Amino acid sequence: MTDNPTLSIERLVNPRSIAIIGASNDARSISGQPMRFLMQHGYRGALFPVNPKYAEIDGVACSPSIAALPDTPDLALILVAAKRVPEMLRECGERGVPYAIVYSSGFAEAGEAGAALQQECTQIAKRFGMRVIGPNCQGMVSTSAQVYAGFGAPFGVSYRGGNLSLISQSGGFGCALLLMADELGIGLRHFITTGNEADVSLLDLVDACIDDPQTSLIAAYIEGLKDARRLVGVARRALDAGKPILAWKVGNTSDGAKAAASHTANLGGASALYRTAFRQAGVIEVSDVADLGDYAKAFGMQRLPRGGRVAVVTLSGGAGILATDVCVQNGMSLPSLTRETLDHLQPRVPAFASLNNPIDLTAGILADPRIFADTLQSIADDPNIDSIAIMAAAASGEVAHAMARAIARVYGATAKPLIVAWNARRDMAGDAYRVLEAAGVPLFPTPVRCARALAALSTYAQAKREHGASRHALRRAPRSAPQASALLSQAEGDLTEHAAQALLRAYGIDAPKSALARDRDEALAAARSIGFPLVVKVQSPDIPHKTEAGAVRVGIQDEAMLVEAYDAILVNARHHVPGARIEGVLLQEEIRDAVEIIVGIENDPSFGPAVMCGLGGIYAEVLKDVAFRLAPVTRDEAHAMLRELRAYAILKGARGKPAADIDALADTIVALSNMALDLEGCLKELDINPLFVLPHGQGVRAGDALARPAQRAHARAEPVSEDERCASAVMDG
Amino acid sequence: MTDNPTLSIERLVNPRSIAIIGASNDARSISGQPMRFLMQHGYRGALFPVNPKYAEIDGVACSPSIAALPDTPDLALILVAAKRVPEMLRECGERGVPYAIVYSSGFAEAGEAGAALQQECTQIAKRFGMRVIGPNCQGMVSTSAQVYAGFGAPFGVSYRGGNLSLISQSGGFGCALLLMADELGIGLRHFITTGNEADVSLLDLVDACIDDPQTSLIAAYIEGLKDARRLVGVARRALDAGKPILAWKVGNTSDGAKAAASHTANLGGASALYRTAFRQAGVIEVSDVADLGDYAKAFGMQRLPRGGRVAVVTLSGGAGILATDVCVQNGMSLPSLTRETLDHLQPRVPAFASLNNPIDLTAGILADPRIFADTLQSIADDPNIDSIAIMAAAASGEVAHAMARAIARVYGATAKPLIVAWNARRDMAGDAYRVLEAAGVPLFPTPVRCARALAALSTYAQAKREHGASRHALRRAPRSAPQASALLSQAEGDLTEHAAQALLRAYGIDAPKSALARDRDEALAAARSIGFPLVVKVQSPDIPHKTEAGAVRVGIQDEAMLVEAYDAILVNARHHVPGARIEGVLLQEEIRDAVEIIVGIENDPSFGPAVMCGLGGIYAEVLKDVAFRLAPVTRDEAHAMLRELRAYAILKGARGKPAADIDALADTIVALSNMALDLEGCLKELDINPLFVLPHGQGVRAGDALARPAQRAHARAEPVSEDERCASAVMDG
Repeated sequence: MTDNPTLSIERLVNPRSIAIIGASNDARSISGQPMRFLMQHGYRGALFPVNPKYAEIDGVACSPSIAALPDTPDLALILVAAKRVPEMLRECGERGVPYAIVYSSGFAEAGEAGAALQQECTQIAKRFGMRVIGPNCQGMVSTSAQVYAGFGAPFGVSYRGGNLSLISQSGGFGCALLLMADELGIGLRHFITTGNEADVSLLDLVDACIDDPQTSLIAAYIEGLKDARRLVGVARRALDAGKPILAWKVGNTSDGAKAAASHTANLGGASALYRTAFRQAGVIEVSDVADLGDYAKAFGMQRLPRGGRVAVVTLSGGAGILATDVCVQNGMSLPSLTRETLDHLQPRVPAFASLNNPIDLTAGILADPRIFADTLQSIADDPNIDSIAIMAAAASGEVAHAMARAIARVYGATAKPLIVAWNARRDMAGDAYRVLEAAGVPLFPTPVRCARALAALSTYAQAKREHGASRHALRRAPRSAPQASALLSQAEGDLTEHAAQALLRAYGIDAPKSALARDRDEALAAARSIGFPLVVKVQSPDIPHKTEAGAVRVGIQDEAMLVEAYDAILVNARHHVPGARIEGVLLQEEIRDAVEIIVGIENDPSFGPAVMCGLGGIYAEVLKDVAFRLAPVTRDEAHAMLRELRAYAILKGARGKPAADIDALADTIVALSNMALDLEGCLKELDINPLFVLPHGQGVRAGDALARPAQRAHARAEPVSEDERCASAVMDG
Repeated sequence: MTDNPTLSIERLVNPRSIAIIGASNDARSISGQPMRFLMQHGYRGALFPVNPKYAEIDGVACSPSIAALPDTPDLALILVAAKRVPEMLRECGERGVPYAIVYSSGFAEAGEAGAALQQECTQIAKRFGMRVIGPNCQGMVSTSAQVYAGFGAPFGVSYRGGNLSLISQSGGFGCALLLMADELGIGLRHFITTGNEADVSLLDLVDACIDDPQTSLIAAYIEGLKDARRLVGVARRALDAGKPILAWKVGNTSDGAKAAASHTANLGGASALYRTAFRQAGVIEVSDVADLGDYAKAFGMQRLPRGGRVAVVTLSGGAGILATDVCVQNGMSLPSLTRETLDHLQPRVPAFASLNNPIDLTAGILADPRIFADTLQSIADDPNIDSIAIMAAAASGEVAHAMARAIARVYGATAKPLIVAWNARRDMAGDAYRVLEAAGVPLFPTPVRCARALAALSTYAQAKREHGASRHALRRAPRSAPQASALLSQAEGDLTEHAAQALLRAYGIDAPKSALARDRDEALAAARSIGFPLVVKVQSPDIPHKTEAGAVRVGIQDEAMLVEAYDAILVNARHHVPGARIEGVLLQEEIRDAVEIIVGIENDPSFGPAVMCGLGGIYAEVLKDVAFRLAPVTRDEAHAMLRELRAYAILKGARGKPAADIDALADTIVALSNMALDLEGCLKELDINPLFVLPHGQGVRAGDALARPAQRAHARAEPVSEDERCASAVMDG
């Protein structure tokens, strides 16, 4: 999928003619439905049913075959049994059909034979340059062209036109989202379900929608992206275009069951990388049906806050507290109003009102709508405030109507985002609701949903600002790294610490003073050169976990202890792994008073190279205080990763300890990001645990490192090209 | 409030007569509304408006004063200005009125003068034994007696009768919840808003509702409980009575701003104690309006699962994944069906169905409703399954209707909880929805909300099982602890580690071998007796944080190091806190290879004594991996606390290390719980950090301890009795 050219969807969503291959006379059957829905909604292009069984369907002439069609359709809907799909696709390709949607099930979701059929479809699509949606999908809707090309009751509904394009990997659930968005009054541009993605992927369609002038908001329902490494790039392009992406990623716990003992599995699963990618690229994550509708409504306002400072204006103390909790939990702040605003408002608001933020005007404010309007305008004009959330509680009747008119007036007079939570029943505040809806003020049924929607705007606006600021930051292209590649290519199994140190050195990452000793005399000589205290540990590619093997000793104070430890760890190592290949014993200066951090590289099969950092030592896996980024990572992003850690407080100097060398740690993360890109073909994962972070100005030292070369046989989807790249890097050396 | 007798609400919710004091002729004014609403809803008791300005209101004779009333009312509604409220309450008391509701604002929420007025109301209530709701509340509804005694549009709605009693500290928000519950079809028993709680608290009313035969479900909206220490007791009584409590606690972030440097503030704020209390007593926490309605709907089924094993049955892969995520995140499991069930189903279900759990029957199952019914019945009968969640996706029309009939039939034939998510629009699946609603099957609009509701049932059922099992566990009553109390009473400021050790010893908690040295010679003598390596630290009540003062040295290997360290830490201590009172230097055996844990006591102003445990050392405050329990804590609960910690994996023996003495650690927590109860009057907080947990069988050692006596002047709401209790404990010694 990744090597497909950029998808143009113009003739997919606005086809001049549509062939329905396998069209049925039975309007209730799946293969009978798409043509009925197209006709029902008034599709104005030509319809070409294809089925040798009929001469016509519903009065439309039916062709016996694709070859026999009177004209080449822009789009073919394929509704035949799975085993006949490749043949139909081939005939479409030969006829020059540019787009096909395959609805049929029985492909990769149904075992090996189905997977082979699907592979055949992929190849046919490539051969003819035809773009194929599905198989095993539910079709699509494009409102402006009246294309309702799907089956199931949701395709019988006429959706109001609008600017939301919704791409879904699930047909059934996609339809549910579509219905809900419509109920919330959100207008639709395109709805496309992608099914098994034999050819066109969800990201292809998201990417295409960025270029669609009528789409201003993109929503995606994601079960898993095979081309996940494109996610950040596509999403950043959407940021540049000012088109927010709302993503719902499901399957977050089952992913956790991934058996491989990699960082991502141990420390959060692939869902951690999805979340990372979303954050890196300003994708707004949703977690229930209502979120999608709520956020779409908020973004529909087409206003973004300039910062995270919100005024919560409430008629009910409880609602104000709730909204405050949600705003603060989502990174917004509730600053004080300026002295000028307070001086203006204090004599005007009701006696029991509180002008602290949340600003509790109490139900007493309803006594005089002019005071409410004036108060709201003053708050909107306050330079300390970037956005306003109004909690109207259950205000009802005529006072509610007056209040809504005041809100609509202020909304029109400010450029700041302003949204409202109002929980009166529609029959009790209908006039008020109609005023706000007519004015375009986003209206939510609860304070929590209102505040979450505002926080989504704020998160997106911040990502857009950061992206703007970082666009010109240096992103170094991958380089050939011949020595490093050679180290990995020559390794049999994991690199020992001594070998991994050489890899790190190539990227400027220091290790403690250390030396490899092959006998006692070499050990004593090395100790004299390094100095005590020392750490000693066995070096064997067959013993990655040295502590468990009893093959590490710390606090070696003198030569006698050294000799004793040297002998003991060799005995333990041989006992732990009989027949282990032992390269020697590594002597290392013992580092004290450093913060122990874990940093690493994970070459994820879906996302590609990622880097991680977290609290090190035995706490890493237990506490899961980790941050991920997909490579490349800039220095600013590396600092942002560190700030995400709870352990950041330790790095800054907790409990009277000196601050650690955070700059050197950030540089190390950037170096690992570079390494991850350079060695993508040959490095599966790398751990530095612990990385000793010394006090400010003294740098870092890699206390232990484990590097795992990519397994060439089955490490990646495209092993050949990977191998070639790695091999050529080695040959360069 | 805590010393009030148990509240009986019979004549509050079912009064034979109601006086409306300050009743107004103006039906739109706040004081005009309650009588109109009572009349509108057909209240059948006597109404006695009181206002010297009128002879009658709406045709009802109006009395000039309370004394002039023709009869003593069961309930008085007080609607006069704040400053006149105490006078009215006094007249009610003198007349023998048993219950009053004060609607007026201008009390504790409005500054010091208001707080004094409120205090006066509290005293009048006590003097006359009259129970007062409010002030600053919005009133109440009791459906069976047609009591709609409040103001605001929500009191104009006729609520369907039912078994939910809703108690709310917020008037406005309480009304919003009430409306929402009604819209979801949930029948109401009582709705009471509590306002400022001068006399009757939310917990008083929750407690009273447990004894109300017509209440089967209690919901509480909580901003803060002054009598929070009763929460666990009241909630456990509700568990015994089989009446679930749904609690919505708001204000979770602002609490975090609590300035005091206590555990609860540093490690999660008071909201951590609310969450703890909820968990300890099976209270189900809700976090948005929809939760409350959804959970009420699920509990309305009156079926509890016998365990957490759920079958997710879905027609759409996406919906199944979603429901699975939510169930698993909430502690439920999705086991395999038994071999027998699988053998029965495999030949019957559609070709592409998956019988793994989640069980994806695909939309193909709709082709034959009998197969769907048979499949569902087999799953319901499966002994591996405790509950069933059906994801009907957007199934619509006649097939949906048939499917609903099958679900209703299976629901009737099983005793297991069975709930359904169905996201077709009402106009597309109305027949199906009516079938399920008539059968009493809980129906939810999204998979996430459906799974959350089922998880709430499962969490509650588990709490009920655990409560049943632990009911007879020994709960030791507080004891007089004369020596320990004396230590605290005599301390000037915080206890030093040496003094705290004596306190711990009284509760059987060991310290490392240690001795206090007042000069170098004593230090050398102590070292010979304890043995090297040693830790040495200054002992001063003025230096609680010794590490920051440079007044701790570890790894003392010999006498020369000891002498050097002894001198150095005294110099550092005197430099850090000039004029500090220094008791000496504590020498302590250095403990290695132990897991460092923090355990402690926090005597919370609202909740009373609580204990905590967590990962120790400098990580405690940074990583916040902590668990709390309100005292008393049983051994089983102590073990449950430890299992909540991410650090539990370290205690069990991570990375080849031996398992720690978890039993001894649990015993230590129980000992601290006992200490917390015994010394409630004199101990504000106590920290053991680190507590060294040695390998299994070797016990624990308190590496450092800090005890802070209660400040007698302003530590607690009832200082006199506290002091007396503490003093008497001391005199006992």
